[in-house]
Amino acid sequence: MKKTSIVAALLLLVFACDTKTKITETLVSSAEELDKAIANAEPGDHIVLKEGVYKNLQIKFIAQGKEGNPITLKAETPGKVTIEGESSLKLGGDYLVVDGLYFKNGYTPSNAVINFKVNDTLFANHSRVTNCVIEEFTQPSRDTKDHWIEFWGQYNELDHCYIAGKSNQGPTLRVFLKGNQHINNYHQIHHNHFGPRPRKGGPRSETMQIGDSYTSMTPSYVNVSNNYFERCNGEVEIISSKSNFNTFSNNVFFESEGSLVLRHGNYAKIDGNVFIGNDNSEFIGGIRVINTGHWITNNYFYKLKGNEFRAPIAVMNGIPKSPLNRYNQVTDAVIAYNSFIESKTPFHFSVGANLSQAEVLPPSEIRSARPERVIVANNLVYSSANNASLIKAYDKVDGVKFESNILNFKVASEFTSKGLKTKTLALEGGSDIFKKSTNQYETYKGFDFNKIDKDIFGNKRQDAENNIGSIVASPEASVLMDKSQYGADWFMSNTGTKKTAEIIVSNVNDFINAIKNTNGKTKIILKSGNYKVIEELQISQHIELASEDASNKAIINFTSPKTAFRFLPKGRLSLDNVIINGTGEQNTFTTLDKNMSKAYNLFINNTEIQNFKSILEVSKGAFADTIMVKNSNFKNCKAGFRLNKETNDKGDYNAAFVTIKNSTFNAIDEDVLNYYRGGYDESTIGGYLTLTGNTFTNSGKTDKDNILLKNRGIVNVKFVDNTFKNNPVKLVAILWGEKGQKDENTTLVNSGEVKIVQNLKLKLVY
Amino acid sequence: MKKTSIVAALLLLVFACDTKTKITETLVSSAEELDKAIANAEPGDHIVLKEGVYKNLQIKFIAQGKEGNPITLKAETPGKVTIEGESSLKLGGDYLVVDGLYFKNGYTPSNAVINFKVNDTLFANHSRVTNCVIEEFTQPSRDTKDHWIEFWGQYNELDHCYIAGKSNQGPTLRVFLKGNQHINNYHQIHHNHFGPRPRKGGPRSETMQIGDSYTSMTPSYVNVSNNYFERCNGEVEIISSKSNFNTFSNNVFFESEGSLVLRHGNYAKIDGNVFIGNDNSEFIGGIRVINTGHWITNNYFYKLKGNEFRAPIAVMNGIPKSPLNRYNQVTDAVIAYNSFIESKTPFHFSVGANLSQAEVLPPSEIRSARPERVIVANNLVYSSANNASLIKAYDKVDGVKFESNILNFKVASEFTSKGLKTKTLALEGGSDIFKKSTNQYETYKGFDFNKIDKDIFGNKRQDAENNIGSIVASPEASVLMDKSQYGADWFMSNTGTKKTAEIIVSNVNDFINAIKNTNGKTKIILKSGNYKVIEELQISQHIELASEDASNKAIINFTSPKTAFRFLPKGRLSLDNVIINGTGEQNTFTTLDKNMSKAYNLFINNTEIQNFKSILEVSKGAFADTIMVKNSNFKNCKAGFRLNKETNDKGDYNAAFVTIKNSTFNAIDEDVLNYYRGGYDESTIGGYLTLTGNTFTNSGKTDKDNILLKNRGIVNVKFVDNTFKNNPVKLVAILWGEKGQKDENTTLVNSGEVKIVQNLKLKLVY
Repeated sequence: MKKTSIVAALLLLVFACDTKTKITETLVSSAEELDKAIANAEPGDHIVLKEGVYKNLQIKFIAQGKEGNPITLKAETPGKVTIEGESSLKLGGDYLVVDGLYFKNGYTPSNAVINFKVNDTLFANHSRVTNCVIEEFTQPSRDTKDHWIEFWGQYNELDHCYIAGKSNQGPTLRVFLKGNQHINNYHQIHHNHFGPRPRKGGPRSETMQIGDSYTSMTPSYVNVSNNYFERCNGEVEIISSKSNFNTFSNNVFFESEGSLVLRHGNYAKIDGNVFIGNDNSEFIGGIRVINTGHWITNNYFYKLKGNEFRAPIAVMNGIPKSPLNRYNQVTDAVIAYNSFIESKTPFHFSVGANLSQAEVLPPSEIRSARPERVIVANNLVYSSANNASLIKAYDKVDGVKFESNILNFKVASEFTSKGLKTKTLALEGGSDIFKKSTNQYETYKGFDFNKIDKDIFGNKRQDAENNIGSIVASPEASVLMDKSQYGADWFMSNTGTKKTAEIIVSNVNDFINAIKNTNGKTKIILKSGNYKVIEELQISQHIELASEDASNKAIINFTSPKTAFRFLPKGRLSLDNVIINGTGEQNTFTTLDKNMSKAYNLFINNTEIQNFKSILEVSKGAFADTIMVKNSNFKNCKAGFRLNKETNDKGDYNAAFVTIKNSTFNAIDEDVLNYYRGGYDESTIGGYLTLTGNTFTNSGKTDKDNILLKNRGIVNVKFVDNTFKNNPVKLVAILWGEKGQKDENTTLVNSGEVKIVQNLKLKLVY
Repeated sequence: MKKTSIVAALLLLVFACDTKTKITETLVSSAEELDKAIANAEPGDHIVLKEGVYKNLQIKFIAQGKEGNPITLKAETPGKVTIEGESSLKLGGDYLVVDGLYFKNGYTPSNAVINFKVNDTLFANHSRVTNCVIEEFTQPSRDTKDHWIEFWGQYNELDHCYIAGKSNQGPTLRVFLKGNQHINNYHQIHHNHFGPRPRKGGPRSETMQIGDSYTSMTPSYVNVSNNYFERCNGEVEIISSKSNFNTFSNNVFFESEGSLVLRHGNYAKIDGNVFIGNDNSEFIGGIRVINTGHWITNNYFYKLKGNEFRAPIAVMNGIPKSPLNRYNQVTDAVIAYNSFIESKTPFHFSVGANLSQAEVLPPSEIRSARPERVIVANNLVYSSANNASLIKAYDKVDGVKFESNILNFKVASEFTSKGLKTKTLALEGGSDIFKKSTNQYETYKGFDFNKIDKDIFGNKRQDAENNIGSIVASPEASVLMDKSQYGADWFMSNTGTKKTAEIIVSNVNDFINAIKNTNGKTKIILKSGNYKVIEELQISQHIELASEDASNKAIINFTSPKTAFRFLPKGRLSLDNVIINGTGEQNTFTTLDKNMSKAYNLFINNTEIQNFKSILEVSKGAFADTIMVKNSNFKNCKAGFRLNKETNDKGDYNAAFVTIKNSTFNAIDEDVLNYYRGGYDESTIGGYLTLTGNTFTNSGKTDKDNILLKNRGIVNVKFVDNTFKNNPVKLVAILWGEKGQKDENTTLVNSGEVKIVQNLKLKLVY
C-alpha cells in the first residue's frame, strides 16, 4: 500500500559560494520520506534528516551523484539525529556523502552498520562518510559477528568519525577486495577517532582489517592516515593489513593493547606513526612484520614494554613455502629512521620461531624461515634504564643488515655490528612525548632511501643534516597529539570519570534498592548485621559493597533460587569485607544466559563466601575482563570458578584476567577453578591467570577429571607460593611448559601433584 | 704483474648528427684491451670489438653511462665477431648498451651467458642488449643448469636478438626479483626471435621464467611484447610468469610445444598474442591460467588441438589455501575478445582437478578449488569440424560467467548459458591465418571493459561496431607474421634442410670412412655381404644405413668391445633392412658416458639385431628425442632398451618418444624395455611410449623384478595388439590407470599378466 502523506520537505535553494550550483535541500523525518527523497535525488542535492530519534532505520542510500556534485545525506543538527535500534546504512552508487549521523543504543540487523555496498552488484564508489559517530552499537551477543564499517568499491572515504565500544566478534572496520571492482581501491581513512574497544578475549576483534588471506596478493592502496587509536584493546591486532600497497601514516596509537600487523600482503608503507605505551602495560605493542617489501620509516615509539608479538618492532619467522593463510617469510623489509624512546628492547627478530613444537604441530605450521634481506638503518634508540637492551632474537639474526643505528647504551655482545653504534645522545623537545637527538651522526644511504625525504612531522630531511631517528626539526607537539582534529567535532566522547555515589544501608530493602536504583557508580556501605536476600541481585552498573566495620562484617544470606548475584553487560561488582552465605542450591555469581554483549568485572577482597553450588558460573559468550580475588575465604561449595564455556576451540575464552591471591578454599567438592581456552592460533595469546599465596584444603573430592585447578589452553599462568593439603585429587594442576609455566614454592601435602606438559596439543583454529 | 702493452686503440671522434656529442670509438681486439677500454669508458663512448673469433672471453662490462649518453660495447661487424668457448658477458652499471655480439661454439663457465649482474651488489640498470645472437651455446652436460640471459636490476632491455638451441637444464631467459633493487623493474623484452629449443624431457627448460614462487607476490612489470617464439619445445611451459603485473602482448607462438603459463603471481595482461598450432601436434598449447586478476584479451588461437595443460585456454583448479609454491585458486580473471579459429575445444576448466588421487597425494596437493569470478566474454569461436566442441570441464563450472560469446556450432547441453550463442558466422581475412567475423553481435560491457579499446592489431574498437573476437578491422597479415622484424637483422638462422649425400659401399673400410667423413646428412647404402667391424661406430651427424637389396640384407658383424654404435650429441641414426650381429659382449647402441649435450635419434626399420648385451644402453643425462622401431626382430640379447638412468626423481627421463611397432623379441634374458620417469610434478607430463603389434617370446627369464616391459612413471602409454608367449615373468607390464593407460587386444600365453595400478605413488619433485 502506498502512503501518500505529504512530505514535509523544505526546499531551500542555496547558492554555494564557490561552485554557484543550486543545492536542493530536502528535509525528511521518516523512513518513507527518506526513501522518497533518495529516489528523487539529483547530483548536488542535500537530503536532511530532521532532528530526532530514528528507531530501526535501515537506510539504503542508492543514488548517483557526480564528480564535484555529490548527493549528500546529512543530519539537520549533528548529534541531534540519532539512529537507534536495529539500524544500518547501505550506500550504492557514485559520489554520495553521509554527514553527521549518530548510531547508538542499538545494533545492525545485517552484517554491517555502515556498508559501502547494497548487494553483490550494487556498491558505492567515490563516496564519503564523514563526521559520524558509532557508539557502542554492539550486538547483544558477543558471538554474533558483524562489522561496523564495510568498505567495498573504489575511492571511498571515512573521515572525522568517532567509533568506539564494539564488544562483539568481527573487526570494527573491514575493507573487502573480493572482485576486480574492489581492488586498487585507494580508500581514504583519515582523521577518525577510534575510541576504546574493550578486550574481547580471543581473536576476531581487530579495529581494522584490510583484505584477507585470499586477497593477500591483491593491490589495495588503502590509505590510513592521521587517525587516533585510543585504547583499542580488542585483540592482539589493532590493524590487520592483508593486502598490498597500503599506507599507514601519521596515526597515533595511544595505549592500545595490540599492534599494527602486516599480516598478509606486501609493500606496506608505515611512516610517521606514533605508538604511545606510557609504560602502562606489556600488552601495548608496535608493529608486527610478516611478508615482503615493507617500508617502516619515521615512526616514533614511546615507552613501550611489550615482547614477542607485542614488541615495538616484531619481525616474525615465516613458514617455508607457507600456505596462503599462514606466515610468509619476511624479506626485503626496510626499517629506517625510527625513534625508540624509553622503550624496552625495541627489536624482536624471528618472533614466532617454533621449531621446538615440531612434535605437536604439522610441518606447515613450523616457522623456521628467518627474515632475509632486512635493512635496519638510521634508527635512534634512547633509554635511560640501567638494563636497556636493543634486540631480542628467537633464532639466528643472519638476514638483517644493520647500518648507522645510534643508541646511548651498550648492545649485548652477540649483536655486535658496525651498524649498531653506542654514542652520546642528548634529547631535546618541546613536548612531553616528542624528543629529537641534538647530536648529528652520519646516516646510511640505502637503495631508494632518497625517497625518505621527510620526517614524522613532514619536515624536509636535508642531506647535510644526517639526522638519525624520526624527528629532524624541533617538533610541534600539537601536530599529532591534538585530539581535536580527530573524530566528529560535535561529539565529545564520554571518557570522564563519574563520581561514585555512596550510600549507607542497614536493612535489606535499602540495600536492594540501592543496587536497583544506581545510575553509574555506587558504593554501598553495609552496616553490621544480617541481610536476608530472597531474590537475585542484578549488577548492570558499578557497584561496590563494603562492610562499614571490617571487624564486624555484614552478613548477606541468600535464599534466591538460582544465584546470589547476576552480572548484566558492563556490570562491575566489588566486594569488600562482607560475608556471603548461600543455601548450597544457588551460585554466588552468574551471568546472563545469553546476550552478555559487554564485559563484566568482579573484585572480591577480604570476603567470606560459603554454601553455594558454584562460586562463579558463566554462560557461553559471557566475558569477564577482570576477576580479582584477594584475602578471601571460600568454603563448602560444590564447585569454584567455572570459566569454561568457550569450548568451540576457536581461541575464545571467558575471562581475560583471573587473579586469586592470599585466599583459602576449603571443601570445594569439584574443581576450584576451570578456566579454558581452546584452539591453536598464535594470534590468541591471552588468558592471564595468577594464583599466588593461596591455600587449598579438602577439595576436589568429586571432580570427575581428578584435577583441582584447570587452566587448559590459558597462555599466561603465574603459580607461586600455593599450599595444598589433603585434596584427594590426582593432579593439582597441569601447567604448559612451552609457555614458560611452572609452579614455584608449592607446598603439597597429601594432594596429588603439579604436572608440567611441555607441548599442549590443540586443535588448529583455521 | 701489469702488462704495459700498447693498446691498439683507434680513436675516432665522430659527431653524432642529433646530439652533437663527441663519441669516442675505441677498437679493441683482445680481452686486455677490452678491459682497459671498459675501465676508461665515459658516457657516450663506443667500445668496438674488432672482427674475429674470441675464445674464452669473460666480459665484465662495468661502467657508468648516462641517460641519453650510454656507453656502448659493439661488434665491428655484427656476425663477424664471434665469442666462443667458455665465455660470458656480465653487465654492471647504468646506461650500458651491448650490440651485435654472436655467442656460439661454446658455453658459459658461470650461471649465465649474458647477465645483467656482476655480483650481488653490482648489477645493471637502464641497460640494453640488442642485435645479438646466442646459438647452441649449451652446456656439455644436459644436467648442468644455467640461463642464457639473466635479468637483474631495473629498466633493462633485450631486443632484436636471436636465441636458440638450449638443450640443458634451466630457462633460457630468467628475470630475478630477489631484493628491492630488482622489483618494479619494467624490463623490456621485445622483437626477439626465440628460435627452436629442443624437447628436454622433464621440467626446468622454459624459454622464459619471470620470478619464482618466492617472489610471486612481487610487482615486476616486465613487458614481453612482439617476440617470435618458434618451436620452443623445451617443456610444457614456454613462458612461466611468476610475478605480478607482467604484460605479454603481440607475441607470436609458432608451433611451440608448450603454453604461456601464469604460474605464480597475478594481474598479468595477455593481449594480442598469436598462438599457431597448424594442427601440428597436441603438444602445442595456448595460455594456462592460475592465480588471480589476469586479463586475457584480443588473443588469436589458430588450429590448436591440445588438451588439459596444453589446451588453448586452460583454467586450472587451485589448492585451497595453497602453499606458496603450488596452485592458488583462479579468481577474477577476464577472458575476453579472443578468437579461436579451427581449434579443438578452446576452453578447459578446472584443469588439474585431482580429488580422485587423494589416496596417493597429501591434502596440500589436492586441487579442489574451482575458478571463481571468472568472466568469459565477447569471444569468437569458429570451427568447421563436424564434432566441434567448446568446453571441457574437469569439475563443476560454477564460478565462470559467460557473456556474449559467439560460436558457429552447438554447445554441449551441459554448458547452456545465455552467454554462449550459436550464430551464423562468416569469416573474412586477407591472410592465411587471420580471419575476422563479418557479422556484428552485441558485446558485453563488463567492469573496466572500456579499457579494452584496441584489437590485436591496435585498431581502435568503436563502441558502435561491437565486434566479437580479437580482430575488428581487416588484418594486415604482415604486421605480426613478418619474421624480418624479429631477431638480429644480420643473422639468418640455419633452418634450411641440407641435402642428404648418398654413398654406396661394399667393404667395411669404405663403410667406416663414410660414417667418419660425413658432414651433415649421409645415406650409406650397403651392398649385400658381410661387414666385420672391430671398432665402435660413432654417430654425431645424420646417418642412414640401408641395404641395397632388401631381399638380401647386408650383415654387419661387430666385434668392437663395448658397443656397436655410439651416439654423440645431435647424432641421428636410421637403419633400414640390415642385419646386425654382436658377440654377446657389447651393446648395440650406446651414448657417450657424459656430456650428451644435445638429443640423439634412433630409427630402426626392417632390421635384425642379435647377440648383444643390451640393445640400447644410455648414460644419465643422455636424451633421445625419438626412438622408433618398426618391423624389426631382436633376439639373443641379455637386455633390451635401457632408458632408465634419470633416477633422481625430479621429472626427467631419457627419451621423449619411444615407439616399437610390429616387431619381435625373442630370448631377451632380462627386461625388453626399461623406460623410467620419476617424481610427481604435474608440469612433467611427458614420456610417450607406443607398443603396438609386437610379439615377445621366451624373454625376461632372468629379470630381477620379474617384469618384462617397464614403463614406470611414463605418462603416455599406448599398448595395443601385442602378443606374449612363454615369457617366464610374473608381470608383462604395469600400466598407470589414472593416466588412462590400458592394454588392448593383448594375447597372453604362459607369460604372466598386465597389471593396472590406478594411482602410482611418486616422490614429490619440489
